[in-house]
Amino acid sequence: MPSAYPRTAQPALVIGSIGIDRVATPFAESDNLLGGAASYASIASSYFAPTRLVGIIGGDFPRSFLARYRRHGIDLAGLQVDRAGKTFYWSGRYHEHFAGRDSLETRLNVFEKFSPVLPEAHRDTPFVMLGAIQPSLQNHVLDQLAGPRPPFILADTFDLWIHTARAELDRLLKRIDLFVINEDESLLLTGERNSILAGRRLRKMGPRIVVIKKGAHGSLLFHADGYFAISAYPVTKLVDPTGAGDSYAGAIIGYLASVNRTDFAALKKAVAYATAVSSLTVESFSVNRLSTAGRATIDARFRELLRITRF
Amino acid sequence: MPSAYPRTAQPALVIGSIGIDRVATPFAESDNLLGGAASYASIASSYFAPTRLVGIIGGDFPRSFLARYRRHGIDLAGLQVDRAGKTFYWSGRYHEHFAGRDSLETRLNVFEKFSPVLPEAHRDTPFVMLGAIQPSLQNHVLDQLAGPRPPFILADTFDLWIHTARAELDRLLKRIDLFVINEDESLLLTGERNSILAGRRLRKMGPRIVVIKKGAHGSLLFHADGYFAISAYPVTKLVDPTGAGDSYAGAIIGYLASVNRTDFAALKKAVAYATAVSSLTVESFSVNRLSTAGRATIDARFRELLRITRF
Repeated sequence: MPSAYPRTAQPALVIGSIGIDRVATPFAESDNLLGGAASYASIASSYFAPTRLVGIIGGDFPRSFLARYRRHGIDLAGLQVDRAGKTFYWSGRYHEHFAGRDSLETRLNVFEKFSPVLPEAHRDTPFVMLGAIQPSLQNHVLDQLAGPRPPFILADTFDLWIHTARAELDRLLKRIDLFVINEDESLLLTGERNSILAGRRLRKMGPRIVVIKKGAHGSLLFHADGYFAISAYPVTKLVDPTGAGDSYAGAIIGYLASVNRTDFAALKKAVAYATAVSSLTVESFSVNRLSTAGRATIDARFRELLRITRF
Repeated sequence: MPSAYPRTAQPALVIGSIGIDRVATPFAESDNLLGGAASYASIASSYFAPTRLVGIIGGDFPRSFLARYRRHGIDLAGLQVDRAGKTFYWSGRYHEHFAGRDSLETRLNVFEKFSPVLPEAHRDTPFVMLGAIQPSLQNHVLDQLAGPRPPFILADTFDLWIHTARAELDRLLKRIDLFVINEDESLLLTGERNSILAGRRLRKMGPRIVVIKKGAHGSLLFHADGYFAISAYPVTKLVDPTGAGDSYAGAIIGYLASVNRTDFAALKKAVAYATAVSSLTVESFSVNRLSTAGRATIDARFRELLRITRF
C-alpha cells in the first residue's frame, strides 16, 4: 500500500498519541480499536509522503496494529515500546445524533511517561505534525529538530491544554507555521464569538497560517495571501467521527510534504485533500476505512469536492 | 436605484409578510423598522429583475417605507392597503451570541385577514417567490397564476407551518419547483438527522430543486444534475440576522428571473448571489444595508465568493 510518491516528496514526521480505543456510537460499539491521533494522522499522511511516526506503545499493543502501520510504509524508528507497560487506553461514547461525546475511561498507561525523543535520523525532517499532546512536549520536539533548513511545523491542540497549559501553548504558537484547530476551540482560545475573527486573531498569536475545522460544515484557511473556505464532503454514512480531525491534519502535512511547497495555492489543495481524507475516516470505526480506501478513492473525493464547489 | 436590467430579465413576483419590527440584539436595539419577509425579498430581487410585491399594510405604514420600495423600482400594484387597520407588528430579541431568538410580541393586525389576490396584470409572472405565509395562502396564490408558460415557483416555510399545517404544506411541495429552507427546519420536516439526506428526501416530496440554508455555515443545493455546496461570505460585522433568509430567497428568484434560466448552472450562480446578498442584510438593522449597498457591492461579494472558494 505505500504509494509511489512524487519525486518532490519530502519526509513527514507525525508525533502524538497512540492508543487502544473502545467507542460507542448511537448505533453500534466496538472495542480493541487502533486509535490515537498519531495513528490516524500518520496513516493519512502516508498516502502522500513517506511518513515517520513518533509515539509510545506498551507490550500489549497488537501485532496487527503494527502491521497496519507497516502496510502504509510508515517508518517506525521513532516508535518507543515499553514492554512492561500497557498502551494508552481510551473509551468514549457519542451522544445521540453525534452531538458531542463523553470520555468514559482514560488510562494513560505508558503515555504518562512519554518523552518524545527523535531518532537522530529524524531530526532533519522538513515537515512535522505535532499532535495534540501537552504543549511542553510539543515544544520539546521542536527543540530537537536540527535540519539544514527550518522545518515546516503544523500543530494541533485541544481544550484541555487551553485550560491547563496556556503559557506553554502560547509559547508553542510562536514557534509553529500552521495551527489546525476545531471551531469551538478557536473561539475558546481567542475569546472571539466569530470564527473569522478567531482565525485572524490566532494568526496574530504566532502561526502565519491557521486552519479552523468545522466538521460537517467544512473548514476555513487563513493565510497572509488570503482567506479560503471549503465545504465538507457530503457524508451520508457517519459511523464514528473519532480521528476525523487527526486524519485531516495528517493529510495536510503529508500533502505539503509531497509537493514540498507551503504557499497559499498548495495549502488550499492540502485543505481540500484533508477534507476528502477525513470524510473517509468517519465512515468506519478506527482507521479501517481510512486505511483501506486507497489513494484513488481519496483522489476521486478531491475531484468531487472540486466539482461540487465550482460555480 | 432601479438597476438597468439585462435584456433577458423577466418579472419576478414576491408575496409574503410586510411588517413593522422592533429588534433587540445583544449589542443594540431598534424599533419602527421596515420588516417582513416580502420587504427583504423584494428589495433583494429588485437588484436583478423587475419585481412585483404582493402583501398587506395598514394605515400606519410609514410613507418612507413605501418610498424605499419605490426607490428599488418595485411594482406596488399588488400591495393591499387597509387604511382602517394597523400593519403587522413583530418584536424580537436575539439571545447572547445570536444563538436563537425569542418573539416578544406578534400583532397580526391587518395580516390576519390577508387574502392574497394577484392583480390581473401579475397573473402571468414567470418567476414567483412564495414567502413563508400559511401554506393554504401559498396554494391560493398558485391557483391564480395563469401565464402562457408554467411559472417557476420558489417557496419558503418555517417551523410553525411544519407543526400546524403539514397537509397543506405537503400539498404545496408537490406544486413548486424550488424549496428554500433552513437546515433545522429541513431536519424537522424530513425526520432526518443529516442535511444531505434531508435535501434528498425533500426532493422526493415534490420540489425538483432544494436549497438548505445553514447561516454562517453556507448552503447546499440539491438538483437532478448534481449537488452544490457553498461556504458563507465571511461576515465579521453581524448586527442583526433578521431577514437574512428572506433576502437570500429573494436574490435567488431575482437572479433566475434576470437570466430567465433555471438550469443547474444558473441555480449555482443564484445561490452564490443569494449568499452575497444575505451577507449584506445582516450588517445592519432592517433593510438598511441591503437597500443602500448597491449592485456593485453585491457583484464584488459574488466575485470574492468565487475567489475564496477556488482551489
